[in-house]
Amino acid sequence: VPIYEVIATHGTLSPEVKAEIARAITTIHAQETGAPGHFIHVYFPELPGGSLFTAGEQSSTVIVRALVRAGRPDQVREAILKRTSDMLQEVADVSAMETLVTVIDVPPSWAIEAGILLPEPTKEAEDAWFAEVSGR
Amino acid sequence: VPIYEVIATHGTLSPEVKAEIARAITTIHAQETGAPGHFIHVYFPELPGGSLFTAGEQSSTVIVRALVRAGRPDQVREAILKRTSDMLQEVADVSAMETLVTVIDVPPSWAIEAGILLPEPTKEAEDAWFAEVSGR
Amino acid sequence: VPIYEVIATHGTLSPEVKAEIARAITTIHAQETGAPGHFIHVYFPELPGGSLFTAGEQSSTVIVRALVRAGRPDQVREAILKRTSDMLQEVADVSAMETLVTVIDVPPSWAIEAGILLPEPTKEAEDAWFAEVSGR
Repeated sequence: VPIYEVIATHGTLSPEVKAEIARAITTIHAQETGAPGHFIHVYFPELPGGSLFTAGEQSSTVIVRALVRAGRPDQVREAILKRTSDMLQEVADVSAMETLVTVIDVPPSWAIEAGILLPEPTKEAEDAWFAEVSGR
Repeated sequence: VPIYEVIATHGTLSPEVKAEIARAITTIHAQETGAPGHFIHVYFPELPGGSLFTAGEQSSTVIVRALVRAGRPDQVREAILKRTSDMLQEVADVSAMETLVTVIDVPPSWAIEAGILLPEPTKEAEDAWFAEVSGR
Repeated sequence: VPIYEVIATHGTLSPEVKAEIARAITTIHAQETGAPGHFIHVYFPELPGGSLFTAGEQSSTVIVRALVRAGRPDQVREAILKRTSDMLQEVADVSAMETLVTVIDVPPSWAIEAGILLPEPTKEAEDAWFAEVSGR
């Protein structure tokens, strides 16, 4: 965690653009939260043409749906939302109206990574967690 | 937002049925919530044959997983759930046992669309939001 | 509900391994919660090569994202998380660092299955629910 799912119909995002979006999301999330890159995941499910609709019509909207650890200040989420929305418009070359980003909290104890339940997003808890992961 | 994800294995839903489901979901959501169609998104991720299991066996269940803005009365969600379940049985030609619909609340401030954080689902907040979007 | 989404890039999991993961998840969830298999769904969305990134680089992480009914004790979720993480390492042959599992609560009244709103996860409510489903 975090997990960023980027939803766009086939052909909207080239392989190069997908890689660029993945790098940009990783940078934004790491800068705003201080989280290490190794736990930032971004994926693009396959949507064949004719599999994405807005207002009942086929559309080329780009939707980002993220799960992040709960417990951070509101302004961290707001910064991630705004920067990700701006980034999509630039990198994916879509209009503001064709972007949608949602960042959803998950309590850390609801997730396990590297085989160990996730820590709260505080420096102390994270340091203890990394020590435990490294010691394995 | 809303975002409706419709999950079915390849071949369960033809392109025509996908389009019909997308239109029907858009109509149901707009009627029950008053939301304008332009912000109603429906997508169908690709699942190759052998990628969906119920009780550990391959199945043709149709699952709808929606994210909607929090803040509406319970009976709005209940109406969406029941109408969507009924619609799937009719349009996708599956039995009640092969349908599953879940509608999950997301606080409006956890999402950004058209570049602006979403408003609460009240007429006043939405009018102000649309004025800001239009003014861009 | 539950709905388990298993996210891995094309080629990471063979069809046989997908079927084995689906059976294993079904067994773990049924044993830990007492839920009947018929309502346990597992699916694997298609992710072409180059569609999954960790730390901004293509990766072979296997991510499980589950929606379950809220209302169970914490130790049920913890057992599901740990057993699912261990199972992935064994069945999918990935390292602990390449596994991520998150199990997210959904209030039962936010979902409809077999055409009837889901019951709370108590024996009494579930018995009444099954009686209603069977009576249809």
